Amino acid sequence: MINNIYLDNAASTFIYDEVTAYVNEINTNIYGNASSIHSEGVKAYEEIKKCKISFASLLHTKPANIVFTSGGAESNNFTVKSTLSANKGWGNNLVITGYEHATILNSAKHMEKSGFEVRYMPLNNDGTCDISSLASLVDNKTILVSTVYVNSEIGSVMDIKKVSDIVKNLNPRCYYHVDAVQALGKTDINLSHLSNVDMMSFSSHKIHGPKGAGALYIKPSVNIDPLIIGSDSAGLRAGTLNTSGICGFCRAYEIMYSKMHVNCTHVSEVNHYLRRRLADEFSDICILSPIDANPYILNTAFKGIRSEVLVNALSERGIYVSSQSACSSKAKVSHVLSNMHVAREYIEGPIRVSFSEINTKEEIDIFLQSVKELLPVLKSFTRR
Amino acid sequence: MINNIYLDNAASTFIYDEVTAYVNEINTNIYGNASSIHSEGVKAYEEIKKCKISFASLLHTKPANIVFTSGGAESNNFTVKSTLSANKGWGNNLVITGYEHATILNSAKHMEKSGFEVRYMPLNNDGTCDISSLASLVDNKTILVSTVYVNSEIGSVMDIKKVSDIVKNLNPRCYYHVDAVQALGKTDINLSHLSNVDMMSFSSHKIHGPKGAGALYIKPSVNIDPLIIGSDSAGLRAGTLNTSGICGFCRAYEIMYSKMHVNCTHVSEVNHYLRRRLADEFSDICILSPIDANPYILNTAFKGIRSEVLVNALSERGIYVSSQSACSSKAKVSHVLSNMHVAREYIEGPIRVSFSEINTKEEIDIFLQSVKELLPVLKSFTRR
Repeated sequence: MINNIYLDNAASTFIYDEVTAYVNEINTNIYGNASSIHSEGVKAYEEIKKCKISFASLLHTKPANIVFTSGGAESNNFTVKSTLSANKGWGNNLVITGYEHATILNSAKHMEKSGFEVRYMPLNNDGTCDISSLASLVDNKTILVSTVYVNSEIGSVMDIKKVSDIVKNLNPRCYYHVDAVQALGKTDINLSHLSNVDMMSFSSHKIHGPKGAGALYIKPSVNIDPLIIGSDSAGLRAGTLNTSGICGFCRAYEIMYSKMHVNCTHVSEVNHYLRRRLADEFSDICILSPIDANPYILNTAFKGIRSEVLVNALSERGIYVSSQSACSSKAKVSHVLSNMHVAREYIEGPIRVSFSEINTKEEIDIFLQSVKELLPVLKSFTRR
Repeated sequence: MINNIYLDNAASTFIYDEVTAYVNEINTNIYGNASSIHSEGVKAYEEIKKCKISFASLLHTKPANIVFTSGGAESNNFTVKSTLSANKGWGNNLVITGYEHATILNSAKHMEKSGFEVRYMPLNNDGTCDISSLASLVDNKTILVSTVYVNSEIGSVMDIKKVSDIVKNLNPRCYYHVDAVQALGKTDINLSHLSNVDMMSFSSHKIHGPKGAGALYIKPSVNIDPLIIGSDSAGLRAGTLNTSGICGFCRAYEIMYSKMHVNCTHVSEVNHYLRRRLADEFSDICILSPIDANPYILNTAFKGIRSEVLVNALSERGIYVSSQSACSSKAKVSHVLSNMHVAREYIEGPIRVSFSEINTKEEIDIFLQSVKELLPVLKSFTRR
């Protein structure tokens, strides 16, 4: 299926064969609307219900706490916009970190137009987030704190348990949302141990499921309006349920969950192999991912190189990496790196390598050999 | 693929075999993120671009005017919420009809919380809408008029060209949106002849495409914010593009468009056959669909019967119809019929038969035979 060297799995992943087959089976055989009360509708409803029960149980929560969406972008927008608007009666601000995904960052900024204040947790230069800042940022008018679990650009990991406890201690009424799009399937998420986490976003196509599907975990205690509203019976998300997308997503998680520890061990080995060779064999680089980052992402900046030039040159050789988050791939400089105060000579040159279970050390060898061949050539094309 | 008698195509349709195969091909081979700048990303981007050009050209508009969404519900919410919020500087009200889909009706009502006024165009008892009411409803603070093209419950057709001209004549600044979810593929939509229509919603799974995809046509002149916001480069809809969903949707429209006139002729014949037999052979019925309704929908109420009882009894025989819109299938009484002032003895008994190109008169014979057998039995179960 994949002939080239695909190291951009944080942008999107190949779909598991078993998931593709399942999606195809549903598209062929289950065409009813899950809201219809006749047998064809019930057939779709039952298929989704079965998948939802499985998905929720792997997360150690109840199916009723899962709302399926069209993906991580919707889940994140839903959280920020709908939590703020539903609670404007008592609150007026939210707190996010300096390295949130654009769907959190820009929906937060959008809410400034409606009079909400956005407060930012500063980043440390090592790519971690300054959690102690919460004490001065959260007050009794703070409706929401939203942080990413695994940052999509550098892979740094937030101690969400700790943050959740701090938030609830500062303001028990404040909701805590976690953007877990890059964490799902790559670290064990047990919601029964995270009682102070109120909401969590997930995406299907980051875990070898189909695009166009995702979910938002919402505790029943959260006061939130639907983002996509319809009839009363539609609950927190109107729109015909995307049977094959939802079921494919849940099946992908079942598969990825079943081999999570094996995968993580393998990916860690490949990651550490790359990190060691980068450190040993390259000068003029800056490894941006913290040493304890999630192993699925390793971001390294090359001095004096503009990322997109190297990304394109590698692409011509069938090697696929990214400059930053795919969603922000046209932006000049990453706001994440900017907030980390990455030095000027490195800030335009980040190369994010993001792994899947099928990547190998042999692929890393080919990648590094290509980088070595390309760097001297490309430096001459790079603007001062 | 379909062994039973499926007459609920306004709720959802089977996916064309060719579309299922295309979706499967993309899910197998095109896994890149269309926003990624490397070849795998470009491959996804180019596939979507090709489909978008085709889709836009069949609608006689430019690809840049099409925004892909997760479906009709999102397109409708996007329109109402984002148009109002972006234009609150000068306006404070919107006008909808008394028979809008729940995703328009309830997103409009939701905006009342933000201080917008919702004004309603009244319905006539024959299921048409009183267009002349616009003169007293639209003023210089009206941001949006939104009407359905083909009503999802009774199939009545709005003269959108006429409405668009009236709206712009009353207030050139006011936007006009058409919910064309039940019209696409069933009537020729030529946007180049509808210059006063500013926005139009479409859904994939109503036209034999996959669920989880849809679109919103937006003229460049419309001042609107994204509903799902992300990086600046994401334009009016953030989130990784759902390659297989979008492409499957566009392919479905190509197919449906190519045989639109043949299909409409066939469906009209089946519809008229059903209408004639209902009128000839049943007493105590009320045909709710106007005589000039779109042929894909025929709604008839049975006196003293509660729809869901008949729907369930027919379902047990493998015949699938609906009580009302699937999205509102749990509501007691349809707001559409209520606003049409349908008599009390009929209002709980609507049966919506909605066709596809593969339905036949023989299926109608079986449906009617079953209804004749069931009615006497069911009347005894029906509450007074």
